[in-house]
Amino acid sequence: MVDMLYTPRSEVDARIAAFQATLDQLHLDGALIIHHTNLFYLSGTSQAAHLFIPRSGKPLLMVRKSFERACRESPLEDIVAVKSLKMIPGILKERGYTAANIGLELDVIPYTTWQFYTKIFNHSTFTDIADSLKRIRTIKSAYEIDLLQRSCTALDEVFAEVPAWLREEMTEIELASLFEAGIRRRGYGGCSKMRAFNQDFFMGHVVSGASGAVPTYFDGPVGGHGLTPANNPHGAGWQVIRRNEVVYIDYTCVINGYTADETRVFVIGDVADHLRRAHVASLAIQAELVNMIKPGVPCEAVYNRSLELAEQAGLADHFMGIGSSRVRFIGHGLGLELDEYPIFANGIQMPLAEGMTFALEPKFVFADGAIGTENTYVLRHNGPQVLTHAVETITRV
Amino acid sequence: MVDMLYTPRSEVDARIAAFQATLDQLHLDGALIIHHTNLFYLSGTSQAAHLFIPRSGKPLLMVRKSFERACRESPLEDIVAVKSLKMIPGILKERGYTAANIGLELDVIPYTTWQFYTKIFNHSTFTDIADSLKRIRTIKSAYEIDLLQRSCTALDEVFAEVPAWLREEMTEIELASLFEAGIRRRGYGGCSKMRAFNQDFFMGHVVSGASGAVPTYFDGPVGGHGLTPANNPHGAGWQVIRRNEVVYIDYTCVINGYTADETRVFVIGDVADHLRRAHVASLAIQAELVNMIKPGVPCEAVYNRSLELAEQAGLADHFMGIGSSRVRFIGHGLGLELDEYPIFANGIQMPLAEGMTFALEPKFVFADGAIGTENTYVLRHNGPQVLTHAVETITRV
Repeated sequence: MVDMLYTPRSEVDARIAAFQATLDQLHLDGALIIHHTNLFYLSGTSQAAHLFIPRSGKPLLMVRKSFERACRESPLEDIVAVKSLKMIPGILKERGYTAANIGLELDVIPYTTWQFYTKIFNHSTFTDIADSLKRIRTIKSAYEIDLLQRSCTALDEVFAEVPAWLREEMTEIELASLFEAGIRRRGYGGCSKMRAFNQDFFMGHVVSGASGAVPTYFDGPVGGHGLTPANNPHGAGWQVIRRNEVVYIDYTCVINGYTADETRVFVIGDVADHLRRAHVASLAIQAELVNMIKPGVPCEAVYNRSLELAEQAGLADHFMGIGSSRVRFIGHGLGLELDEYPIFANGIQMPLAEGMTFALEPKFVFADGAIGTENTYVLRHNGPQVLTHAVETITRV
Repeated sequence: MVDMLYTPRSEVDARIAAFQATLDQLHLDGALIIHHTNLFYLSGTSQAAHLFIPRSGKPLLMVRKSFERACRESPLEDIVAVKSLKMIPGILKERGYTAANIGLELDVIPYTTWQFYTKIFNHSTFTDIADSLKRIRTIKSAYEIDLLQRSCTALDEVFAEVPAWLREEMTEIELASLFEAGIRRRGYGGCSKMRAFNQDFFMGHVVSGASGAVPTYFDGPVGGHGLTPANNPHGAGWQVIRRNEVVYIDYTCVINGYTADETRVFVIGDVADHLRRAHVASLAIQAELVNMIKPGVPCEAVYNRSLELAEQAGLADHFMGIGSSRVRFIGHGLGLELDEYPIFANGIQMPLAEGMTFALEPKFVFADGAIGTENTYVLRHNGPQVLTHAVETITRV
């Protein structure tokens, strides 16, 4: 058996220290971390638990289920079992923690769950600390970058298998099912996480020909039919893959928690000239953006430059979607979630910084297909280092 | 191309009528439906939209993205495009709707999202209508039962393929990846929905031998290692499947929105006597429960009877988990979500009613394996009709 990877003590200690500095700035007594993503980030476990992090001193992990697994997975010292969440305020008091002003992740905690906490902590006030944690998580450690690289490499391997699978008259969903099995057996945990409310997302999209222009609610440049209006109405559908139609494959891969994101294009036969030219343009835009990205550059400068380049290529009307389905970003941060900082969009002045990890995805959508590229990067002191390496030209089968 | 299935007008009309009766009882002016599940149930689309349902009169679907798709998918008459959510109160006012007391799904809407609504609706009060909608969704129409039957049949087909895939020394995740590809290519939309906060769930569990006794936070009788503590830490892991170890497979299948749930057990070689006896006991308990379930029977009576039967079989200590990992239910409702009403647990007096759909899952966990059965049912006037039909004896390969 392959052992599971547990987060080292040094990682968790550094993350908690960074967060305690923020708690100090916010004049909070501490924070109660509940949602699985931040809970894993700050404790090393995503079992059902509440992590109290005081402004200074040692955190306390209170586990409802499974205590045994949380003890094995978390490098924290103070771990206790709790039978009922109502016990939490009493436990904190007994241990001498002050908890008058508490940070909570109010961007994901549902209203009625918040109500429950206001009842059990009836002498405390709550402050939203979601954004502070998003900002801390934006800068990845060498350990995290190594994990992200593993997800990227697995995704590259599966892209390399596509030519062996692709055949005329197979449905998009057949190809998607093979691709997904490929990433699952390499360790994809099965849940790709988005922080935004109501943004259902599975693992990725396979869309062929005109499916690439089918709009959807999902906040990405390319939609697709999906299988049903009932859930996940985007990505692969029942459409049959035909000769001389581009097959656009955009997938995530989450191994040991870290999310890779990569897009490649395949075709059985030939690619129409306008699509081929747009693909060349997307690679050229990517190269220009990679060249301009350095620590200190504001996110919006990258987005606005991408619009200029699409305009210069005479493809502005197809860039990042068509008509009302166009999205207004050129890239997004990646990590434990798919929708992290930095966001490369107009109005986002956040300066890029060493250790940020993100995907850039210059794409064009036409009535007969979606085309473009997407890669995952880490920002080094001198510019972006690409972590995804599948062949970028359109693969002809 | 296979056309996607759109919800008929008659279905949506009946659902809205039932909900309007509830709004009337609650003395609400109307409700704003936002979360994808109820939105799909009441409008036929899960595009990004807000559905206002007045206490009486016609509902209004306000679509942010994709308007084009929402118009195609929803049978509702009044559908308008909105560029910004801030426009919603003004649109309602213009159209003459009263919206002083509004129902919202406060069990899933995050706190900061609720804050946003309190700002744009600054003269309205909000009431949680989540439970009312759960109760309405509990009783399925003939149309919904037909869709659920299709999900169940697809799941049966994939279980029938398992003997061809199963081989010694393959990992749990390899088998899981094949199983998942099998349900995906039959139309599994890719998102299995749970309403409960923080309950990550993918599609199902493959656990072999001792993995069946590995605890996890997930609220089910059987856990499993999973691939990583970082996300979805249950289900298939890196464990190798060995001869004479039970392979327990519990999967959902969601086609056109409706969730089937089924568990079967396989083995290469022989099954240890204590596991074989427990499997016979689980089938016997299932038969007894099916026999007692009728419209009018309270949920808890079914659960309490299952405890008696496990006790009589001398297997109480292994029933529905071991030690602190034991769960306190014997079945759960199924539909657009995996955690619907009815809940077969102590203290739940909800009487069963014709048209309810649910899974029963009498299971036993031992140090060397998890065993048992699970099927999906619809309650008819004279008792449960089973919708899942894979072979229930342990399949020897």
